[in-house]
Parts: sequence; C-alpha cells; structure tokens
Amino acid sequence: MESEQLYHRGYCRNSYNSIASASSDEELLDGAGVIMDFHTTEDDNLLDGDAASPGSNYAMSNGGGAPSSTTHLLDFLEEPIPGVGTYDDFHTIDWVREKCKDRERHRKINSKKKESAWEFTKSLYDAWSGWLVVTLTGLASGALAGLIDIAADWMNDLKEGVCLSAMWFNHEQCCWTSNETTFAERDKCPQWKSWAELILGQAEGPGSYIMNYFMYIYWALSFAFLAVCLVKVFAPYACGSGIPEIKTILSGFIIRGYLGKWTLMIKTITLVLAVASGLSLGKEGPLVHVACCCGNIFSYLFPKYSKNEAKKRETLWRSFFAALVAAFVLRSINPFGNSRLVLFYVEYHTPWYLFELIPFILLGVFGGLWGAFFIRANIAWCRRRKSTRFGKYPVLEVILVAAITAVFAFPNPYTRQNTSELIKELFTDCGPLESSQLCQYRSQMNGSKAFSDNPNRPAGPGVYAAMWQLCLALVFKIIMTIFTFGLKVPSGLFIPSMAIGAIAGRIVGIAMEQLAYYHHDWFLFKEWCEVGADCITPGLYAMVGAAACLGGVTRMTVSLVVIVFELTGGLEYIVPLMAAVMTSKWVGDAFGREGIYESHIRLNGYPFLDAKEEFTHTTLAREVMRPRRSDPPLAVLTQDDLTVEELQATINETSYNGFPVIVSKESQRLVGFALRRDITIAIENARRKQEGIMLNSRVYFTQHAPTLPADSPRPLKLRSILDMSPFTVTDHTPMEIVVDIFRKLGLRQCLVTHNGRLLGIITKKDILRHMAQMANQDPESIMFN
Amino acid sequence: MESEQLYHRGYCRNSYNSIASASSDEELLDGAGVIMDFHTTEDDNLLDGDAASPGSNYAMSNGGGAPSSTTHLLDFLEEPIPGVGTYDDFHTIDWVREKCKDRERHRKINSKKKESAWEFTKSLYDAWSGWLVVTLTGLASGALAGLIDIAADWMNDLKEGVCLSAMWFNHEQCCWTSNETTFAERDKCPQWKSWAELILGQAEGPGSYIMNYFMYIYWALSFAFLAVCLVKVFAPYACGSGIPEIKTILSGFIIRGYLGKWTLMIKTITLVLAVASGLSLGKEGPLVHVACCCGNIFSYLFPKYSKNEAKKRETLWRSFFAALVAAFVLRSINPFGNSRLVLFYVEYHTPWYLFELIPFILLGVFGGLWGAFFIRANIAWCRRRKSTRFGKYPVLEVILVAAITAVFAFPNPYTRQNTSELIKELFTDCGPLESSQLCQYRSQMNGSKAFSDNPNRPAGPGVYAAMWQLCLALVFKIIMTIFTFGLKVPSGLFIPSMAIGAIAGRIVGIAMEQLAYYHHDWFLFKEWCEVGADCITPGLYAMVGAAACLGGVTRMTVSLVVIVFELTGGLEYIVPLMAAVMTSKWVGDAFGREGIYESHIRLNGYPFLDAKEEFTHTTLAREVMRPRRSDPPLAVLTQDDLTVEELQATINETSYNGFPVIVSKESQRLVGFALRRDITIAIENARRKQEGIMLNSRVYFTQHAPTLPADSPRPLKLRSILDMSPFTVTDHTPMEIVVDIFRKLGLRQCLVTHNGRLLGIITKKDILRHMAQMANQDPESIMFN
Repeated sequence: MESEQLYHRGYCRNSYNSIASASSDEELLDGAGVIMDFHTTEDDNLLDGDAASPGSNYAMSNGGGAPSSTTHLLDFLEEPIPGVGTYDDFHTIDWVREKCKDRERHRKINSKKKESAWEFTKSLYDAWSGWLVVTLTGLASGALAGLIDIAADWMNDLKEGVCLSAMWFNHEQCCWTSNETTFAERDKCPQWKSWAELILGQAEGPGSYIMNYFMYIYWALSFAFLAVCLVKVFAPYACGSGIPEIKTILSGFIIRGYLGKWTLMIKTITLVLAVASGLSLGKEGPLVHVACCCGNIFSYLFPKYSKNEAKKRETLWRSFFAALVAAFVLRSINPFGNSRLVLFYVEYHTPWYLFELIPFILLGVFGGLWGAFFIRANIAWCRRRKSTRFGKYPVLEVILVAAITAVFAFPNPYTRQNTSELIKELFTDCGPLESSQLCQYRSQMNGSKAFSDNPNRPAGPGVYAAMWQLCLALVFKIIMTIFTFGLKVPSGLFIPSMAIGAIAGRIVGIAMEQLAYYHHDWFLFKEWCEVGADCITPGLYAMVGAAACLGGVTRMTVSLVVIVFELTGGLEYIVPLMAAVMTSKWVGDAFGREGIYESHIRLNGYPFLDAKEEFTHTTLAREVMRPRRSDPPLAVLTQDDLTVEELQATINETSYNGFPVIVSKESQRLVGFALRRDITIAIENARRKQEGIMLNSRVYFTQHAPTLPADSPRPLKLRSILDMSPFTVTDHTPMEIVVDIFRKLGLRQCLVTHNGRLLGIITKKDILRHMAQMANQDPESIMFN
Repeated sequence: MESEQLYHRGYCRNSYNSIASASSDEELLDGAGVIMDFHTTEDDNLLDGDAASPGSNYAMSNGGGAPSSTTHLLDFLEEPIPGVGTYDDFHTIDWVREKCKDRERHRKINSKKKESAWEFTKSLYDAWSGWLVVTLTGLASGALAGLIDIAADWMNDLKEGVCLSAMWFNHEQCCWTSNETTFAERDKCPQWKSWAELILGQAEGPGSYIMNYFMYIYWALSFAFLAVCLVKVFAPYACGSGIPEIKTILSGFIIRGYLGKWTLMIKTITLVLAVASGLSLGKEGPLVHVACCCGNIFSYLFPKYSKNEAKKRETLWRSFFAALVAAFVLRSINPFGNSRLVLFYVEYHTPWYLFELIPFILLGVFGGLWGAFFIRANIAWCRRRKSTRFGKYPVLEVILVAAITAVFAFPNPYTRQNTSELIKELFTDCGPLESSQLCQYRSQMNGSKAFSDNPNRPAGPGVYAAMWQLCLALVFKIIMTIFTFGLKVPSGLFIPSMAIGAIAGRIVGIAMEQLAYYHHDWFLFKEWCEVGADCITPGLYAMVGAAACLGGVTRMTVSLVVIVFELTGGLEYIVPLMAAVMTSKWVGDAFGREGIYESHIRLNGYPFLDAKEEFTHTTLAREVMRPRRSDPPLAVLTQDDLTVEELQATINETSYNGFPVIVSKESQRLVGFALRRDITIAIENARRKQEGIMLNSRVYFTQHAPTLPADSPRPLKLRSILDMSPFTVTDHTPMEIVVDIFRKLGLRQCLVTHNGRLLGIITKKDILRHMAQMANQDPESIMFN
C-alpha cells in the first residue's frame, strides 16, 4: 500500500519523506546526539521533526510505526495533489526530478509484477513500450518522408508542365511509361507537355520560352504564397528548420505545441509547397522536426512517456534515428527510386593521390569561410527582421524572395533543376553513359565518338559553358540561401549548403583536371599522372566540397563525415573528407565557434547550455547568484511560522519560480526548496478540499505541526511539495564547476550557501546571462526561465 | 603576477581564495548583511573572515587592495607546497579538482601568449601536444603490434619445425621463397623441415609423428614457462588482459606502475611467448594494455598530461583508438600480410534470406548461454585460485594448463593451427580455389573435378571428418578457455571467444546447407532455395556465431557489431549480426548483467562505478553515510581552535583520507574539506621552512589569524589546502541521485548535511559497499579507497 502512495505523489524526492519520517520518535531520541549535540544552540527549533537520526539504517524495516496524533492531517496529504510536478510553458524541466519519478514508477511496476499474470503482462507492455513508440514513429515519419518526396517531385515538375497520360505522374514517371523514349533522351517524351506546348501549342521559339518562364514564376509564387499563409494562419511553429528549437527542447525546455499535431500537419504540407516553390532550401531539417512531432504524438499513447518530460525527450532522440532508418529503408523499397540504401551513391574508378590533399584542404578553407560568412550574414539579416518593421510582413517577404529566386533560377539549368538532382549530377563521375553537359569532353581520337571513355581529356565547349553556368549558380545560391533561411516557411539547410560546396568542388575539380591534362609534365603531376591516364576525379572534389560546406555551416566534424560517407557509400575517401572537414571546422572556428543552429538559439534567447562550449572564466558562485548587491533580499519561506496570507503575499509580490525554505530568519539554515507553481496549486487544492483552511491558517513544512494557540485555525501542511534535497554549492565554488554541475545533472536551479547558511540562488537563466555578460553580449537576450 | 601564483598552487579550487579575499575589509563591512544578519546567533564566529560579501561582483577588478597586517603570514602561503594535490597509490582521483587545475593552466597560457612570440610558440606547442602524444603512441603501439604479430607467428611455427634456408622465416615465408612450391600445396616445400625430419631424418610414419608431437609439447611448455617466470619476476602487472584494470584506471583510480615501462616491456615479450605457447588466448586485450602503456609513457613528455591525472586519462582513451588505427594501417602496408585494411576480409556471393534469421537467432542464444556460462565458471575458478593454496603456484598452474592444451591440441588440425587462421578459414566461403578440408564437397557432375564451383552440394568425406573435428575443437576450446583466462600470463579473450562462436556457427551453417540440399522441397526452402542454387553460406553463419559469442562474453552490443563488420568488411550483413548480438545480450543478461570484465573488476574489488548499471533502491543518503549508528562520531576539524598537536593526534588516531572543517563544534556548520595527505604534507613543509611553528601553535583555516594570547607561538595558516567548495547533499537525498552525482561528476567524496549542519560523509567506497550490500553481496569485497 505504501508503494502505491509513493507512486501517486507528484514529487519523487519527497516520496521518501514518509519513509524517513517513519523512524519513530524513540529513534529520534537516541539517534540524535551520536555525532553532535543538536540542542545546544538557540536557533535550533525543537519542533524540527526529523532531525538527525544518523543510525536509521533500518528505518525502512520498522516503517509501519504509528504516526501518532498527526494521522488526521496526514490522511489528506497522502493523496496526490493534481498538477503538482508539471511545468508551465517556456520553462525548464528538472531532469533529476523527472528521472527520479521514472525510477519510482519502474520500482512500483517491478514490485507489482509478481502479484498476478495481468500485472506481469502490464510490466512487459511497459518494458516494450519504448520499442513500440520508436517503431510506430519510424513507420509514420518514414511514410511521411516518402509522401513528401513524391509530392514535392510532382509539384516541382508542375512548374514546367504536365503529364497528359496521367496527371499524377511527374516528368520522369511520365516518360517511363512512354515506349517511344530512347535511353539517350530519357527525359523527352510526347506525353509530357510543357506549359508553352499546352497553351501556345508550340515547343520551341522565344514565345514559348517566355510562356514557360512565366508559368514557372507563377507556380513558384503560388506555392510560396500558399505555404506562408498556411504557416501564418494555422501553425506559426511550423516555420524554419526546427532544429534549434528541437535542440533546446531536448536539452529540457517546454514549448507547448511545438511538437503537436497541428504543427505536424501544417509542416508536412507546407514543406512540400516550399520545396516545390524552388526556394533555396532543403527538406532534411524539417523532416527531423516532422519525425520528432510523430515521436511526441505517439508517446502520448504510453503513460511512461506522456507523464514524464525526461523520458519523452529520450523517446524523441530515438525517434529521430528511427525515422532516419525508416526513411532510408522506405527509399530502398521505393518503386520509383534507385535501389541503393544511400542518398547519393557514387562509385569512382580511380584512387586519390597525396598531392590532391592540397586542393581538398583548399576546399576545406572555402567551406569554413563560407560557413562563417553565412552564419554572420544570416544572423544579421534575421536580427534585422526581428527588430525592424520589415519583420511584420512575412507573407510579402516570402513572395518577394520566391519571385527573385524564380526569376534568376529559370534561365540557368543548374539552378532550375531540383537541388538534390544537381548534387547527384555534380557528384557523378563522367562515364561512357553520362550524357550531361559536364561530360562533353573533346575526344582524343578526333571524330568517331563525341566523347571518350578515357578521362583526362581536354574540355569541350559544353564543359566551358557548364563552368560559367556553375559559377553563376554558385553566386546565386550563396546569396539566396542567406535570405531564405529564416523565412516563415519550413526550410532546411543541408541541401543548399551541400549544393554550394558541390558546385565549388566540381569547379575546382575540373580546373585541376585540365591543369593535369595540359601540364602533365610538371613535377607535381609527373609522378602519378601519365598522358591519357585517368588521374583526377572531379566528382570526388564535389563530394569533398559538399562535406566541407556542410561542416562549415553546422560545425559538426566526425559525425558529419560519417553521414556524408554513408550518403555516398564511399569508404575509401575518408581521408580527403576528414582533411577537408577538419580544415573547414578550424577555419570556421577562427571566426566564431558557434554553428548556425547555436547562433539561432542565441538569437531567439532560448535557455540552451551548450555542452561543447568551455566555461573559462574565474568567477565564483557568489558573483553570479541572486540577489545582487542592489537587489532586494532573497525571498525565502520559513518552515513553520508563516500564515497562508503571508505566503500568498510573498508569492504575489515576487515573480520567482521557487522559494528556499529555511529553519528561521535568524539561523538562515536551509531546509528545502518549494516551487511557486506547486505552492499555488497546493493552496488552491487545500481551499477546495480541506475544511478549516483560512487566510490566517499556519503553513508548515515540518514533519509535525507547530504548537499553536487553542483558538487558531487548522494549520496547512505543505511538506509533500517541499523538495528536501535541493542542490547546494558554497559561495566559493568556481563558476566553471557550477556550470559543469548544471550541464551534467540538468539542474534548473541551485542554492548557494556560506558556512551552512543560505546566501542566494543560481538558476540556469542566471548562468546563461552571466555567460553572455562575460562574452560581452547583452545579458538581457536570455529570455526564458 | 597573480595568475602565476594561481597556477603554481596545488589546489585549484582554492586558488580562488586569494581573489575572493581581495575584496577588502570595507566591502566586507557593507557587503555583509544585505541578505541576512550574520551576527545575531551565538555560534557565529566573529573571526569567520570572508563572510558573505554577496555584492563582490567586481572583486577581481579591485584585487590589488592591501592585505593589511597579515602580509607576513601570507607570503609563505602564496608559495606552492610541493606534493599538495597529488595522490597515493590505490586511491581515487577527484575529477572536478583535476579538470579545474587544467582549466587554470589553460587560462594562464592564454593570458601569457600575447606577451611574446616565445610564449605564443609555447601555447601552440601546448595546444598541439595532444595530437603529438596520440601520433607518437599510435606509431609506437602500431609498431609493437606488428612486431608481436611477426614474432608470435615465427615462434608458433617453431613448434612444428624450422626453415633451413633462413632461420628467421616462418613456415609461410619459407615456402614463399622456394620456387619448387605449387599453388595447391603452398605450405609444403623442401626448405621447411619438421622436427622429425631434422632429428630422425624421416617425414612420415608413427615415429616421426611422435617426434613432432613431443617437440610441439616441448616448445609449448618452454614458452609458457618462460612467459610466466618473466611475469612473476619482473612485472606482476603484465598478466591477464589488463582491460578490467584499464577500465578502472580510466574511471579515475591510481595504480602506480600498471602502465609503466617495465610492464610494457615484459608484457610485449611475454605476450609473444604466451601466444606462441598455444594456450587458448588472444592478443587483442593485451594489445590495448600495451597501447595504454605507450600513451602513459609518452604523456610524461608533456607537463599538460603528466601533471594532471584527468588529462592523462583523456590521452589514454585517445591512444587506444590511435593504436587501433595504427595497427590497421601497419597491417595494410605489411609486406607479409594481405593488403586489406580489415582483419578478416570476407566476400560472400549470396544474400541472406528472412528464414535464416531463425538459425541466426539460435546462434545468438548459444552465444548468450556460452557467455553466461563462461563468466560464471571462470569467476568461480578465479575465486578458487584467490582463496585457496592453489593460487600460490602460478608457474606450476601455467605449465599444467599449457601441457594439457598442447597434448590435446596437437592431434586435431583445427586446434593445432593458429586461432586467427582458424577463424579466417571458418569465415571463408567455399570457392573454386579453396583447398580446405571444409570444402571437400562431392561434385554433382560425378568425376572430372574433385569439387564443384556451384555450392549447395552434398558433403564429401572431408566435410564429415571436419565436422567431427570441429565438434571436438569446440568442446576443447570451451573447457581450456575457462581455465586459461586468469592465468598469470598475458591473455586476451576476443580471439578464443570468436573462435568458439565461429566453430559453432560453421557447424550450424553446414548442417543448414545439407538440410537445404536434401530437403529443398520443404515448404521452408521451397520459395528461395532451388536445386543447384547457392542459398546457404556457412561462412556467414560462422561470422554471426563469432559476433554472438563475443557479445555474450563482453556484453557490448552496437559497438561490437561495428567492430565485427569493420573486421569483415561486410556492410550487407548488419541485420543478421544485429539479430544475433541482441539475442545473445538478452539471453546473457537474463543470467546476470555483468560482462566478463565487470565481473573481474568486482572479483578484484576495484572501485569502479559502472555507468550502465541502474541504482534502483529507495535508500536515502543518511542510511549510507558514515558514521553509522555504532560508529564513533565523525572526525572533524574546527576552523580556528586546534593546535598542531591536536591536529596531528586527530590524523594519527583515524585512517580517513580527509576531514571536514567546521565553524565550531557547537554549530556544526560546514566550512570546507581538507585531505589527510595535504595536511600531512603542509605541516611537514611548515616545520621545515617556517620558523616558530611548534606543537602548540594554533592551526587556522580562516582568512585572518585568530586573536591569540601574547605569548603564544606563531600560528599556522592552512587555508591554501582547504577545499572551500566541497560537494554536499542533504540527508534526505535519495541514493539514486547521490549515485548519479558521483558518476557524472567523478566525485571522491560528498558531505551530508541536515538543515545546514554537517551530519556525515559518503565516499565512493561507501557507495560501492552499499550497492554490494543491496545486491546481497559481501560489502567487504570492495577493497580500495
């Protein structure tokens, strides 16, 4: 029975109180005084119930002992108070409390499971619910990812034309079904009609070009308008990539509705529209958000997760990986896609040479510079949007950006096509079957074939044209991505970053190739690059460049390389990738250590304590804690001499989220910590349910009620909402240790003592403010609690 | 100048004291009392120097302020006391203190680096010293691994014969140089002479067989004898795999000499001897030990690592990975080996089918059962060795085990050969070039060829014989491995575990193959296994079995699979491997959650707090802390009324490693914590250097000296060795939270308070004892501090 009561309590750390207090009075009498004399000093309250019983090693076994005369008061308090132990919106969770609550639940299930077959089944169900959530999430988000893929492809092609044989086919599928298609011209078939053909009836000529151009812009603007309107009206949280917010949520912050069903629905729909509108954005980041929404929604089916914020976050992590796996699996069984398990499968014929590390490292430098530049420019633009009137017209902004993108993208084939397709083309090496413009080399045996199977050839006119177009595409992508990331539509950054790197890499690769062809007797090439031999692989350069740019923007190193080489399936190119990504990270870090996501977290003022960033200052806890010198004294509660009225006055006068409870104003010795929300709920609850609670009722946090005059109203016991094991540090503790404790234990607040006396309090927000101050930033940018 | 002093201090946490105390007296006077009145209670010592100055936010800036009359006393104490902040053998390190020391050092270098070009160079050197250590370690341990490989191969072949053309060639190299060797009989050549040929002059017949048998046993015993003698005489720490000890050291324990040069030298030599003696052991575990020794030795070249136990451990982690990489690279450029980057490179021709998951999962069950059985049997045997007279004759034991191993291993070709070779053979699929006995299938087109290229054939007599021999080898390996792991020679467990799994897997694989051949019309096989088609790959079964057994013994899941499939280069078989390894872990965990290394850690009583194991009991800190009910009171020091004599008496009467310092016996309010070792060193140092320190000198931990009678001797200030930010928890804190704090922050001890008063202390050892007690084990098995 006791364990049941324990389970229902809101507070886990307090559920031990009843066990501890069960060490009966006799024990107290001979237990105290073993170490020290408790009753020699004035300030020691004699009613301080469960004072030291250091020998209470066996307290649990003689637990049943009579709680004497206070039984009638305890009865009420053994009941759980609804709402105690939950959180407000935009507040930080207490990881220790949440984990503790879960262990309590687990113990209860474990102790019950031997009772009956039904309880055993329930315990099995509980143990497997984690797998269930992950499986469901994986399936759901994998299916959504597939749907988004297909829908975005179809709508993207809608900008160019329609399939007459079947409206729901995209360009590629339309021509698959046609039997008039030859392999060389696989994307041309009579069933697929461009808008000019449909409307004007002619496929060639300036008129039809302008018609196609116009329709392209029309559709792009329509999609963009629809996307931003849906986001604005139905789910404002659906905009952006969502990764900064998810990082903050996973670190223990509450944003209600951010992972809800509305966000999921609207994000899914608008992501398709945003991708199809041709804006310079990707869908990988928003897909993470979609997966986390699925995880959150499914977790509500299982009390294990829905009632525990820490466990829910565990599930979100797992969901994210499950979704990735599911998406890959879905892609592999996708009847329309290629059958590889990887996103961009590449096979290169030639190894790389040591000398090539120089261009690879240069690509790394480019990636780092681009990353640093992008982060600064994008943050500056987003700050402008936040602070000026301009930010009040998100719809107009999206339409404007979409219009500029469409106008400049259409004439250049490399910007008109789907960005994933572009990356794939850039990664691919030129082989005999490649009909791309990038592979139009002049054949060495002049005549017979248009291009040679043997690489290391002089570039043909197609390659030169492609180089120009790629340069323009590079400039275009760089500018547009800066203005696109942060718009009020779902937008990811992986694909645009990779595209920029891939374009730069391919350009460098082709340049190297031509250099090696025309100067193969240079001492640099002489050793390993014979005439007519295949020695430079431009596709590999594109891959290295993509990794470097992705690294520069997001600042993840090893994990990034792993992702990239999983995407490409190339295990042999780990050294070039590593070299480029490490360089890009070092170069980027020289301009600022934060990645784009961390920068956006800071821009938005989320309370995120970065695990990577070292705290290197020599400040002490006393310098960071509140109250500061000029502040009013710390709001504290005494354990047994407040009335309900006084307590409410203290709560109303301050805006703190919690209050330390002390023995007495004179001694300042700390007893515990009570949260504002819990106190409010408990008083409210007592008023409703418990008779005789009045404004002048005494409130006490001790085990036993204080001795009161005969005519005083019934007292209110609040021990069950008191956290009796608050974290404390001394005022001399260096802040680096305090920061470490907050990070590793996931604290929400910590009390500061000096020689056993309460001195102040440090919250997560205080730490973030202090860190901002030390970095010469505005401490008021930290907004939430 | 101040920063220099800070750097030289032994204690990092106290280096802040001088900053804090720099907030001059004026500040103290108006700073205190902002929050609370400090002078109202009796027990508040007025000399409690740096009481609350909560507004000292700018303390650092006005730091230069006069330290008034105490200057002559401070002068001495600003000097570093040599030895303070180091550790005794078999003690636990304080991670917080070590990390803090390193940040202090880092800050000093950072502040200095702008002073001159030389300082800037030094800072660069410091920043890169981590990479240097890792590179050096990687190279050295890679080279050692290569040497051990070559030497062990040569000595292993010495048991069978010698190469007449060149003594230093092993069997394989000897026959490579011979031009009389055909491909089919590549291991037979005239230059290689077996002992029978050399001594008796004949290669065939029972006489020569007995001669070879005798020489095999003779060499095996010689090697084993030499190995155990070297270990016993020169470096007792060189025995075993070393992984349990390294895990403990990495978790923050001091074992002097365990990673020293003697251990390295002897371990390298004896590892070769032990492997060559034919005992059932591998060299992977000891190689980890060798790599860590290299890392430790090289770290002494860099003060960043040699002077900081936490940083040293970081380096050891990195060294371990660097060594693995280096070993692989060395292997890839090894002129004698194959050119693959992986240990066992396998390519299979056929995919696996869903139905095959059943035998794979059965192999997982076998792996789990074997792991659980092995751990129990081996631990029981090792405990017997520790507790009985038998353990006193390690040399005899090794010789006995080596003799039994040699006698039973020689007749069976699968036990006679090198275990790595055996695993390779078992992993390899039967192809047209395979001459192994395992591939002697009867050809389907009877006659012409001895075996067919097309698998799924009836087994020939060779296969039947091999099956019998494999069964015997399995039983032999299982028994011998139990008795071998724990002998006083270097011994790893990876290769024997994998061998057992590979044998079992291959047996199951061949059985499945024959089943599919003879019953290909069963409904199970009908769908996917046509007549004459290649549907079962016995080599894959061997691989899956090996992974399952390795998982069962060591209980690592995902990381294990990654290792295994890196070893084999097979990315497509991740699902079978995962299924088997997960099953093996579940089955194994049902019999006990500890892997073999954790079991050995517990057997040896090392203070290792496992991060995986959940603490699930409901005990409170007050039940675990010392002093217990029956104990004498906690030994504490008061901050300003002890004499040197009293202090020494307290130290001599107790055996504690540290003492809490309190304001006064009456108030029991905690000031800080002082380590026994530091107090002893400081008193010793003061006696030598500081004049006027006598037995009746007053010792004080406060900022200012207490007021003393005029004729009293000069007092001794010990503030610099006082840890002023000890970790505290309340007596009501659940042990699960305490355990979490110890794990995550790497604490050595934690003080327990109740309402601001010191109540007791919890050390890492107390926690381990408590956990042992809760698991119904002998708490006295935890031996070290």
